[in-house]
Formats: sequence, C-alpha cells, structure tokens
Amino acid sequence: MSSSTGSYDPREFKALTWHDLLPRLRAGTDTPRALLERCLETIAVREPVVKAFVTLNETGARAAADASTVRWKAGKPLSPIDGLPIAIKDLLETKDMPTEMGCEAYRGNFPKRDNAAVSALRSAGAVIFGKTVTAELGGTQPGPTTNPFDPARTPGGSSSGSAAAVAARMVPAAIGSQVGGSIIRPAAFCGNVALKPTQGAINRGERQATSMSTHGVHAGCIEDVWQVAIEIAARAGGDRGYPGLYGPSRAPLAVKPQRLLVLETEAWPEIDAGTRSAFETLLERLRRADIEILRRNDNPAIEGLERALGDARRVGTAITAWENRWGMRNLVDQFPDGVSARAKASLAAAEAMTPTDYRELLAVRTAAQQRHAGVGGLADAAIMLSCPGPAPLWPGDVPGKPLVPRPTGDSVFNMPSSMLFAPAVTMPLMAVAGMPVGAQLMGQQHDDARIVGLARWLIEQVSPVLV
Amino acid sequence: MSSSTGSYDPREFKALTWHDLLPRLRAGTDTPRALLERCLETIAVREPVVKAFVTLNETGARAAADASTVRWKAGKPLSPIDGLPIAIKDLLETKDMPTEMGCEAYRGNFPKRDNAAVSALRSAGAVIFGKTVTAELGGTQPGPTTNPFDPARTPGGSSSGSAAAVAARMVPAAIGSQVGGSIIRPAAFCGNVALKPTQGAINRGERQATSMSTHGVHAGCIEDVWQVAIEIAARAGGDRGYPGLYGPSRAPLAVKPQRLLVLETEAWPEIDAGTRSAFETLLERLRRADIEILRRNDNPAIEGLERALGDARRVGTAITAWENRWGMRNLVDQFPDGVSARAKASLAAAEAMTPTDYRELLAVRTAAQQRHAGVGGLADAAIMLSCPGPAPLWPGDVPGKPLVPRPTGDSVFNMPSSMLFAPAVTMPLMAVAGMPVGAQLMGQQHDDARIVGLARWLIEQVSPVLV
Repeated sequence: MSSSTGSYDPREFKALTWHDLLPRLRAGTDTPRALLERCLETIAVREPVVKAFVTLNETGARAAADASTVRWKAGKPLSPIDGLPIAIKDLLETKDMPTEMGCEAYRGNFPKRDNAAVSALRSAGAVIFGKTVTAELGGTQPGPTTNPFDPARTPGGSSSGSAAAVAARMVPAAIGSQVGGSIIRPAAFCGNVALKPTQGAINRGERQATSMSTHGVHAGCIEDVWQVAIEIAARAGGDRGYPGLYGPSRAPLAVKPQRLLVLETEAWPEIDAGTRSAFETLLERLRRADIEILRRNDNPAIEGLERALGDARRVGTAITAWENRWGMRNLVDQFPDGVSARAKASLAAAEAMTPTDYRELLAVRTAAQQRHAGVGGLADAAIMLSCPGPAPLWPGDVPGKPLVPRPTGDSVFNMPSSMLFAPAVTMPLMAVAGMPVGAQLMGQQHDDARIVGLARWLIEQVSPVLV
Repeated sequence: MSSSTGSYDPREFKALTWHDLLPRLRAGTDTPRALLERCLETIAVREPVVKAFVTLNETGARAAADASTVRWKAGKPLSPIDGLPIAIKDLLETKDMPTEMGCEAYRGNFPKRDNAAVSALRSAGAVIFGKTVTAELGGTQPGPTTNPFDPARTPGGSSSGSAAAVAARMVPAAIGSQVGGSIIRPAAFCGNVALKPTQGAINRGERQATSMSTHGVHAGCIEDVWQVAIEIAARAGGDRGYPGLYGPSRAPLAVKPQRLLVLETEAWPEIDAGTRSAFETLLERLRRADIEILRRNDNPAIEGLERALGDARRVGTAITAWENRWGMRNLVDQFPDGVSARAKASLAAAEAMTPTDYRELLAVRTAAQQRHAGVGGLADAAIMLSCPGPAPLWPGDVPGKPLVPRPTGDSVFNMPSSMLFAPAVTMPLMAVAGMPVGAQLMGQQHDDARIVGLARWLIEQVSPVLV
C-alpha cells in the first residue's frame, strides 16, 4: 500500500471521550469550560498539521460552555450531553458560522440558519464548536485535512475534518454525513467509532438532497456515539416521512453476538494481504469467542446478497450523481470556476443518464434491499471491513496528469449500507502498518440500537488485531 | 355560501388550450410567438383585477417563443410542447426571475437557479412566461389573486395565480404544487383541469421540504395536463428515490370507467345543499351511463378507508407543519417581521409537537395508505368532490379580529390524495351559483395515466351539472 508507516497503536491510543468525563462533571471536579479549554489547547498544537477545521467559533463556544458549567453546578444539565464540545461537518448549516461545503462557489456562504440536527444539539446543551473540513460538496475532491496518524495520508472523506478532529483528540465527538461512505470510511481510517444510522433516522434538515444520505456521529467511544445520536433524534426526529432513530435514551448495553455473517463485497479480491490477514485474524478471534461466522459459501442467501451488491459502488455513485444533477448544473452555470474538475466530471456522467437509467438503478437498489431483508434471520448482524485497508497516501494531483481516482479512499465497503438504508457502526479493531483499519457491523433497517449494543460488546471484549 | 353569483357557465366557457392549437402550428398557420402575444393581450386586459402574476418576463418569453417559432417552421420542434407558454408557481426557482414565495422575508430573493421541472420545461422548448402568486410559502396566508369568475372570491391556494392564470385564459398551462390541496383545490375553484401526480412522480428539485408534496399541472384540457407532465418527467424524472411518472408519451386515450367508488370524506356532513345536489346529480348521470357507483355502505373496505381518512385534514396539516418546523424557525429568527401571523401560528403548533407525535401521525398515514391499497381491486378509481363547494368569498382579515380560518378554502377533499401519495385529477364537471366546482378522480399510486384516461372519458362524455 505504501512505504510510509503510521503512528497508530490501538493498545496505546486513548481517545478523548465525554462518557469518561461525566462522573467528574457530576461530582463537580471538572467543567465543560475546562474541557473546552483542553480541546482548544489540543487544537493549537495539532491543527497546523491536521487542518481539521474550516471555522472555529471560540467566543460562542466559551459562552455556551460557561452556560453549561452553570447548569451542571446547579445539578440541572439539559441532557447527558450538555456541555459536550462537538464539531459540525461544514455541509450542515450553522447560524453562527459560515457553511462553505469545501466548495469555492460557496466561499463566504453564511446563511445564518441552523440545520435541524445542529438546532437539536444546541437544545441539548452541546457546545457547537466549529465547522470541519468536508470534501467538496460531500463528493470526492479533497480538502486540506491530513490523517492524524500520518500526515502523508488522507483522513478519508467526505467527513474528513470530523474524523480527524476526533482522532486528534481535539473534540470528543463530531457530526458527519454519508452518501457513499463519508462517515464510516473516514472514521475507519482515523480509528474512531462512528454510526451511520438507518436511512432517515436523524433529521438532515436542509440537507435532503439525495435519497441515500444520512447524518451520523463520530466519537472516541461507542457510548458517546449513541448519546449524541439519540439526543438529536429525541428533539429533531428523523427525516421527513421517516420515523426517526429507535432505541434507548442511554447507550445500549453490550450484547454478545451469537452469529455474524461476513460480507466480502466486490472489493474482496483486491484487498491487500495485510488487511486481509488482519480481518481473517479478527474473525478467528470471534470464532474462538464462540461466535459463529457465516460466509457466502455457507448459505445461498448470503451468496445472493453478495451478488445483489456486486455492483454497489457503481450503482450507488450513479444514483447520487443523478440526484445531484440539477443542483450541480445550476451551480456550474452560476460559478463556472467555482467547482472542481472532479465534480464537473460527475455532473457530466449524470447528464448522460436518462430517467429510465435512474429507474433501473433504483430497481437494483430495491432488489438488494429485499435480499438484505432476506438474511435478517440468519445472524445478529453482518460484519465486514469498513475500508479496503489503511488510509491511502495523498500527495495531491499532479498538474497535467489525469486526476487521481478516489483521493479520499474507496467507498466500496460503505456503499452497501448506504444502498441498503441499513445502519452501520465502525469499530477500531485493526491496525495495519501503523494505521487504523475499521471493522463494521451492519444491521437491518432500524437495528441501530441493536448493532450499537453488539459493537459495544466487541469493542469491550475483542483485543484489536495488529498487522 | 354567499350572496354573490359568479360568471362561470361550463356550457359557454372555452378554455385556452395548446392541444387545439397544435394542428395550426404543424400547418404553419399559427406560431408560438403569435400565441404568446395573444396571451400578453389577455393579461393586459384581465391582470389588473385577477392579479395572477408576481413577475412577468416578457423579453425572455418573446425570445423563447421566437426560437420555438423557428423550430416549428423548420419542422423540428423539441417536443410536443415546444413553444407552449407556461406559468410557474412562485415557489419554484427560475434562473431568470425572482422567487419570492409570497413571503415578505423572501422579497427580492433571486437565486438564479432553475428548479428541475423548470429546467426540463425549457429543454422541451416551453416558454417560461412568468411567476404566479402563491399563498405564503405554500401555506394559507393568501396573496392578492382573485377568482377569474368572481373577484370577490378566492381563486384557492396555494397555487392561486397558476389556477387563475389558466382560468382567465392568460396561459394554456401552469405549474402548481400541492401539499394540503394546493393544486386540486384552486383548479377546482377556477374550472381548470389539473393533475396532482403520485407522490414523487415529478422531480421537485430544491422543493423537497416535505414528505407529501408534489409538483403538478393546471391546464385548460386534459391532453395538455398530461403532455406537460410527461415532458417534464421524461427529462427530469421523479423525486430522489422515486421512479418518476409512468405513462405514455402522448395523452392516454379516453377509457370509460366501469366502476367508481365514492369517497365522502370527513367533510360530507357539512357540504352545502347546492354542491351536494350537484355531486349527487353527477353520480346519477354516471349511473345512467352504466357506470357502477359504490359507496361506503356497499362494502366494508370502503367504509374502512373512509374511517382511515376520517381525520386526514388534521393529520396531514400536522405532518407538514412538523416537517417545515426547522426551516420556519430559522426564517422567523432571521426575519421576525417577514412572516405572517398564520405561518407563525403553524410554527407554534409544530414546536409543541414531539418526534413521538410525528411518528404516530406517520403511522396513521401509513395505515390509510394500506387501506387505500386494499380497495384497489374494487373499482377503476375513486370519485369525490375536489372542494367543499364554490370558492369562498374573501374580503380579507379584519384588523383586530381573529384571523379568518382557511381564507383560500378548505383542503378537506385534497388531503386524502396527498396523504395516500395517490394521483388525483380534477375535472370541471359542476357549476354552483355561477362558480366552478370540480370533481376528482383518485387512483392507486402510479395510476396517473390510468386516471387521466378515465378523466378524459368523463370530460368528453358527461355534460357538466349546473345548480
């Protein structure tokens, strides 16, 4: 994969978490303001290389943290995440910071509105801390963020800054969004825990451009992931027409899986030897813990699901390109120089499609969803890689040469959950060449709490694999 | 209902249609430019009282009509609607005209983007003529438009200007949009034919704020309604995640219904005697044409559907208010004086709701959809009133008095098709007190072409009822 070796060692890495701080907040021995200042100190040290943030609102954050500190001292926090400093992907509107979406055409865009999820976080007392770098418009054109464990590598995308800010211990949690892999992949490249919920489970507010994108949560521990997600859903619900996230008001208890089915996906033949070995070792550890592992040869229903997802990357990419077509055409017409060549290539591909092409792609997606529903009784969840290996090196495009394909990494392990509208959790259970590689659990639609409970058990009980 | 009598007589009223003009265009004896000039002349005469338009783009329209005229002369029109002058509801973005949405906060808003449907219409050669008055943000606060058949009455809403412009023969067709009744009701009050398609059937572009709104078409004849709808769908498809409008590339042939089921709805007990008599007379004419009419007492499945829709107006209104809640909150925070008291009341109602309340409303909606699917085999379609009677008088609110409820009329006959995601066509088959009253056919999801064919038969074969 690369000659560069990262600095990640899961035996030593200690994520910044809110969950671990809560007892001290309750005891009055720590405060949201003090935590915020520690976050700002970390940012001062690491941001020059990591470049996770587009905008920081230190003044607003300090005021919010002070107000939260008062509430904790009075024993009246607004929620269990009152005072939690959280970073927001710069695709989501925030009334106190610009929303530039990693796109030149949106430079200086400042609509002074709150995305529904941001509004819910404020109501819960969370400290809206800053806006994190996103790949352009949530697509593939990278921003400046580097991987906290090796600055020569991508943090993944499109939620690049959200993943890196959590991994660099700048914040305990961050909001990302996923269409083709933009939550799970960067989290996996950065050693975070993250939840890409069931389609529609968290209100996307104004960000409802596509039929298979979700908001999700990056954090340093599974408890924080869940708490942030459920606090949003408790206030803003799900997307329009969707019932919203189902689950308990505190992190689901750890539940040992009894059976897991492995999804190899279309990428399996191309996985590098180190990553493949790490994943097989992980599966072996699960077997030794008496968890039954089913694979495509074990059951024709699993083989059928693999086949139904056999072209997922292309299908998912084309669905999203079509759905973004009119918005992108307007943007390019208005700002011909304000959009990257990568985004223009995606628009050109979409403009070569017809409504009939799109209808066929939806039929493929629906068939895959039916196949997925058909394996629901076979196992507690599916387990798979979260990414095809460690974060790739990203030296930048070379002027005059063709654009590098997939500079923020390959969505091939992420498109399945997006296409299936299925919840997925990535867990930092592997390290390859000193870089994090995530493993993910994927559940049936609305199984969010269930897979969080299973992931909690795996994170607590299975020691990470080093290769 | 009122002491004022309108000027509508369906035996004499002759709508402006594109369909009737096509042979002359093909023969070269008329041109899109000449039609446009006739439309502008009509506007000059009638607009001072009707007030259908917010913005007219005469220069752009003339240029587009001239280009179309050249194409027709060369025998190379872009589509069967090449040159058709069409008005666009001012909720939809147009790159060459402002989009003010009937809302003070959006005064001067000019994003220079085309809604997907507008973009598709331009590709088909249609002449984007002007922006029509909408009730504020598609809600209930009326604009200045009057009913073309009695200026003391509302044209209905929220597609007020689109309905009135067609009825006043200013344009052969106009785009509207419906959440709670905003296509079918104003069309019914104005004597138009209109289609509210299956949910998701016509790409709403940036207007995807709610889970049960659609774009639709008002026109002077059913052939034009279909042709405009299918030309949009052929280019822009449906909403994200939806397969888009199904049906032939030319207006469906007239098909005689064999069986129709009547939906009375929760409003039935309150219908005025004239309207009730007109509708019963219409049903009697259908029976005499050997069409079987089924009612709620004839089959428990129909009674079950009636009951499932028994609270549709409240349920649909609350669903939409919740879905608009975050956008409205941002707007009111930014422009406290830019939004009407009616809209603020709707926001306050939404902010008193919880995600659990919303989830329950969705469950009611889903149950109604299941009930509707269950009557699919009973009849060719459902027939019902399109509105509770002639358009109500609208003298305006009285300062110091409570706001008049439903100044653009009652959505009670429109919420069912919206909630059921079902296609509906309104037909100008009745007149009460000199005002149009529509009857509608509602089909199963994706039955759009089918109900258009049935409506075509009814419009051609059944003489309108005068009361």
